[in-house]
Amino acid sequence: MNQKYHARIYVTLRPSVLDPAGTAVQSGLAHMGYTDVESVRIGKYIEVNLNAADETQARSQLDLMCDQLLANPVIENYRIELGEGS
Amino acid sequence: MNQKYHARIYVTLRPSVLDPAGTAVQSGLAHMGYTDVESVRIGKYIEVNLNAADETQARSQLDLMCDQLLANPVIENYRIELGEGS
Repeated sequence: MNQKYHARIYVTLRPSVLDPAGTAVQSGLAHMGYTDVESVRIGKYIEVNLNAADETQARSQLDLMCDQLLANPVIENYRIELGEGS
Repeated sequence: MNQKYHARIYVTLRPSVLDPAGTAVQSGLAHMGYTDVESVRIGKYIEVNLNAADETQARSQLDLMCDQLLANPVIENYRIELGEGS
């Protein structure tokens, strides 16, 4: 448990799921004059600092956290980038 | 206006700004048994498809969109990754 890791987690809606917030932002941008925007999708970006024995353990912990709390696997995908923390 | 671009925008709270949502998630994770998590910060991840004449124009448009709508420059930082779209 003595190694520190820094994880960046990207949670995005699955492509088949409608994104009303993204559509609202696109519409807002169009009203502001940004008419060249074709689509906007909004997701979450989560930074986690954690301690783990090794990278494999850190990654498996993060996978579990995403499945159980950080993402909704029914409608969302997630991607984890793991690096060493300071 | 005939080149398509795909932008990934990461909006994060400035380090000096408290993140109550991140603290709540960290607390929730601790209650679920993930006690090795030291900190959680939550930001936004925005994907934008847009048309622009060239990369410089696309980037300047995206900078304006971030300053005016997508991020709150008082409390948030943003980072833009720009690639060619399909």
